[in-house]
Order: sequence, then C-alpha cells, then structure tokens
Amino acid sequence: MSFDVPAIPPFDEDAAARARAHQADLTKPPGSLGRLEELAVFFAGARGLFPVLPPERARIYVFAADHGVTAEGVSPYPSSVTAAMVANFAAGGAAINVLAHACAVELRVVDAGVGAGTLNMRREPAMSRAETEAMLDLGAGHAARAADDGVTLLGAGEMGIGNTTAAAALAAALTGAAPESVVGRGTGVDDAGLARKTAVVRDALALHRPHRGDPLGALAAVGGLEIAAMAGLMLGAAARRVPVVVDGFISGAAALVAVALAPRVRDYLCFSHLSAERGHRLVCEALDARPLLDLGLRLGEGTGAALAIHLLRAAVRLQNEMATFSSAGVANRD
Amino acid sequence: MSFDVPAIPPFDEDAAARARAHQADLTKPPGSLGRLEELAVFFAGARGLFPVLPPERARIYVFAADHGVTAEGVSPYPSSVTAAMVANFAAGGAAINVLAHACAVELRVVDAGVGAGTLNMRREPAMSRAETEAMLDLGAGHAARAADDGVTLLGAGEMGIGNTTAAAALAAALTGAAPESVVGRGTGVDDAGLARKTAVVRDALALHRPHRGDPLGALAAVGGLEIAAMAGLMLGAAARRVPVVVDGFISGAAALVAVALAPRVRDYLCFSHLSAERGHRLVCEALDARPLLDLGLRLGEGTGAALAIHLLRAAVRLQNEMATFSSAGVANRD
Repeated sequence: MSFDVPAIPPFDEDAAARARAHQADLTKPPGSLGRLEELAVFFAGARGLFPVLPPERARIYVFAADHGVTAEGVSPYPSSVTAAMVANFAAGGAAINVLAHACAVELRVVDAGVGAGTLNMRREPAMSRAETEAMLDLGAGHAARAADDGVTLLGAGEMGIGNTTAAAALAAALTGAAPESVVGRGTGVDDAGLARKTAVVRDALALHRPHRGDPLGALAAVGGLEIAAMAGLMLGAAARRVPVVVDGFISGAAALVAVALAPRVRDYLCFSHLSAERGHRLVCEALDARPLLDLGLRLGEGTGAALAIHLLRAAVRLQNEMATFSSAGVANRD
Repeated sequence: MSFDVPAIPPFDEDAAARARAHQADLTKPPGSLGRLEELAVFFAGARGLFPVLPPERARIYVFAADHGVTAEGVSPYPSSVTAAMVANFAAGGAAINVLAHACAVELRVVDAGVGAGTLNMRREPAMSRAETEAMLDLGAGHAARAADDGVTLLGAGEMGIGNTTAAAALAAALTGAAPESVVGRGTGVDDAGLARKTAVVRDALALHRPHRGDPLGALAAVGGLEIAAMAGLMLGAAARRVPVVVDGFISGAAALVAVALAPRVRDYLCFSHLSAERGHRLVCEALDARPLLDLGLRLGEGTGAALAIHLLRAAVRLQNEMATFSSAGVANRD
C-alpha cells in the first residue's frame, strides 16, 4: 500500500473577492460581523463558488485508535477506555454525540486501530511506513466518499488514550519545539505523570530523530493511526474543495502533518478552538492559525469542531440571506 | 408611571452544586468541557433546578429607539436608519433574523421610541424620569410575559442610531471611567467624528453629573429608551429566574444599570461576546464578566446573544444527555 498525496486545487481568490465585495453591501456597518464575515469569505474561496450554498451537510469523522506508548504510564486512564468510548459513541452517550446533534452535524466513528494500536514509540517506531500510508489512505477515502455524498464541510476528531503524547511528539518533531513546551496534562496526569510523559517524548525523539523534512517518517515514528487518518482526511478533502474544521491539539498535530505533506491544504483548514492542552497554542502559531473559540475545551472527539461548524454555517447563511442596503431601502452611511 | 425594582430570588447554590457534581460523573475527563460545564452549572443555579431542562424556548428582544444626540453628528448613518432597520427586521433581512433562525431562537422587535426618541443629552436630559421608568416597566413586562410563555432564556439586543454615544456616557457615569476610554467608533465614525463623540459625552457628563449612586437618574440623563427597556428586561427576567444573555456594548451598558439598581441581577446574566467597540472591555471588567466569544462583532441587534444562546443550550444538553461512567461501562481514571 502506498499513499499518493493528492493534487489540491488553489484557493479561489476570485470567489473570495466576490464574497468580500458582497459583504460590503449587506445591511450592517462594514466589518461589523467580524470573523463571521471572514468565515463566509473563506468558505466561498475554498469551495471555489460565489454565491455558495451553506454547508447544510457537514460531517465529523472521529477516528479511534490505541497507542502502545500507554505502557509508559502517560495517561491516568487505562487503554481499554478507547474501546469503551467507541461503544459509548455507538450508544450516543458521548459529548460528541450530543454536540453533533445540537449543531446538526453528521457523525461517523471509524476504527483506525482500536485494540490493535501502535507500538511503543519509546522503543520502536509507532507504525511501519506501510501502516502509516494505509491510514492516510483510509482518511482520504472517507473524505472522497463524503464529497460524493454531498457533504461540503468536514470536521476531524479523534479518540485514543495516549494520543496527546503522540501529538506532542509530532508537534515537537515538525515545529522544532522543545518537549517541555508541547507536552501537557492530556486527560489529567499529575506532576509525576507529566514528567514521565515529557521524558517519553524526549526519548522517542532521540531514538527516531523525526524532522519536518520527512513528515511521513515523523508520523510513522511517533504519530498514531488516528492522527494519520485525520491527516489523510484533510488532504483528501482539500483535493475535493471540501474545507475541514480542525478540532483541538491532536487534530492540530494531524494538520501539521497534512500541511507539511502538501502546503496548499492549509487554505482549506478552519481552526475551531484553542484547546486548554499546553502545546496547542504553539501548534496554532506554527500553522498561522487563529482559532475561533476559546472555551477551555480539552476533550477532543471533534467537540470544538462541532461548535465551529455551527458558526461557519451561520456565517454563510448571513452572507446569503441578509438583505442589501438597496434591496431593503436602508440608507447607507453618508 | 413608576417602576418598582422587582424582588430577585437568590441564585440557587444547591442546584448549582448538584449540577457540578453531576458533571464529574459524565464520560469525559473532569473539566474537559471547560466553559460549557460552567454554563450548564450557571443555568441550573439561575433556574433553581437540577436536573434542569435545556432552554428549548429562548427569545431575543430587540428594543429599537432613536437618539436626539444624533443632532451632534455622532454617527455616520442618518437617524432614519433606525426605522428602516426595524422594517428590515420585520421583513427578515437583518443579521439578527438570520442568526435567530440559525440558532433556533425566537425574535421579538419592540418599538421603544423609533422616531419619537430621546432628547439631545448635550443640551438637556435624554429622558424624563417618568419616561425612563415607563421603559424599565416595558422591558420587565416583556420578561414576565416571556416567562409566562414558557421561555426559559432571554437575550437582550437593540437597534438605535446614536446609541453607542448613550452607552458610552452611561458607562462613564456608572464606572467612573474617562470618556476617552469608553467612546469608540460605533458603526464607524472617522477620527473627527470620534473627537466630536468624545466631546459630546464629556459635555453631557459635565451638564448632568450622573453618578453610580443614582443609576435611574444617570439612565434618564444620558441613556436611551431601548437601554432602559433592556435593563427592565434583565430585572424582570431575574425576578422570574429566567437568565438573560447580554449582547455587546449597548446591552452591557443596560446590564450596568440593572446591576446598579439590583446587584443580585448579576447572577442571572450571561455575557455572550466581547465586542470590538472600544468601551466594552471596561464594561465587562466593571461587571466582572468574562464573555464567551471573541469574534470581533460590533453590530448589536442581539447577534452575539443568539450565538451564545446556542452554546448555552448545547451546554445544558451535554449535562442532561451524556452518559455517566457507570451507565456507559467506561472505566474511570485510576
């Protein structure tokens, strides 16, 4: 199995410019809808259309997988929680179930390696290159099928006990940041756990020497199956002009990989929220991303993405449905 | 006509404590839903109920009124835009129409003095005391009727050309801030307009000497009809245990008045967003408020409130609908 990075069309600056010009005609002072205006312009440019229909069909993929690095005691929860949470998703009892419903977003949970997870990155590469490529392909395939289904906006979420460790290692590898600045408390490790986690990341980086010049190698060495699948989803979606809403820290690490593999994918990404997880700000800075929300979330699952999808959809509806000064007979500024 | 500040029941700390304890049982790491957890706990305490039904029926009131101070050239838009925008609300073409629909919020537009607005505060009191009390009563009456209708969450929005000038004067009067720190560009005055606006506020404060010890007098002297109605809405809602989502700068100035009249109303207020209007941060600090969103909005109409109502409703649904660790058979942390 090999994965070919798909061709990604350029962002449509002309559609974006037409959307921006239309914003100035709507019955509001120019710029007064702030980032909602930017979101609607982004959506037009990414879709390559103006006018552009709002994303009535939006879908969040939650890729779930286990992590061999949990053997090092990097999480306060047992690995079995990954599978239990997948069952919870199926039963409709997790946070993402409630938020997907509240935000009218479709939800797909994909087993990217629950039980049969990665190996322990502290001792050996987390994945083989072939496994890594298979997961990129899995994610890209889901994006293509979603586009075929008429979905015009995607969200990238995850579940995987141990995956803040993998995301931190990847973030360090791809940004050059020190482990201390990207390793956080995840689901809530204590000080000793945080020290262990930091040491594990430092050891894994010393063992594999992953670097930004080889994003696929870095992903294989210290990443995760669900992180690879999310990166594949982003690449496959951008190839079809379907924007992707990035969730939090883990999803952000997947975005780092996707952008390293194909810089143009950046133009199709919308960053939903600033996670409370320590390394997320640094990841956002590396991606030149300004997240929409700052609500202290640090759960993953695509929960922040669901909220942002609702905002993005509202932004496009504003662009389409508001009256213009001339149509409404409202005097414009002198 | 006189207005009696209604009795406001204390925030129910017991219901809030029970909500907080329940949050710890839900299938997520403790605290990982951040401010969504706080919102759900706030709603339980304000409603005085746990469990508490989510606010399926939420309603935004947009109070519209004109301002005599527009004679001083404080806005780039003519006063006639207030009436034209009320017609635009009726036709469904304004931003708040689109957002109320997108967020499943009921919308009521109330004429609090369109055309027959306030007098020019630079020369005389904006309103008489009787007019001011009538508007407080108007707002409180709407809150009571909303509660009778089964509405369990309100939003306070407004429309009124010139009203950032009134809100700035009120904010200065009730917080002691200098005019320069609360007067902003509103719908977009240029530098000369900003200087004029600041001078008008300074002159009005020198003429009337409004102060926090007499909030009703300050409201009458330099406020507005729609600002009084919003303050009344907040007071009337709190009396019925209906929380109110405050919109931006003008709505925030109304909150300053309401809290000055009855400090307990503060426990029933939720602050939706940080407006891009200059004085809003200072108003939020005076109210010890941490707005939920920071999207660069500065439109008013209740637009930020609509988005926050959607967040608050989602937060309560999470509290009610998520599985617990024991019910879902998910292992809790070691």
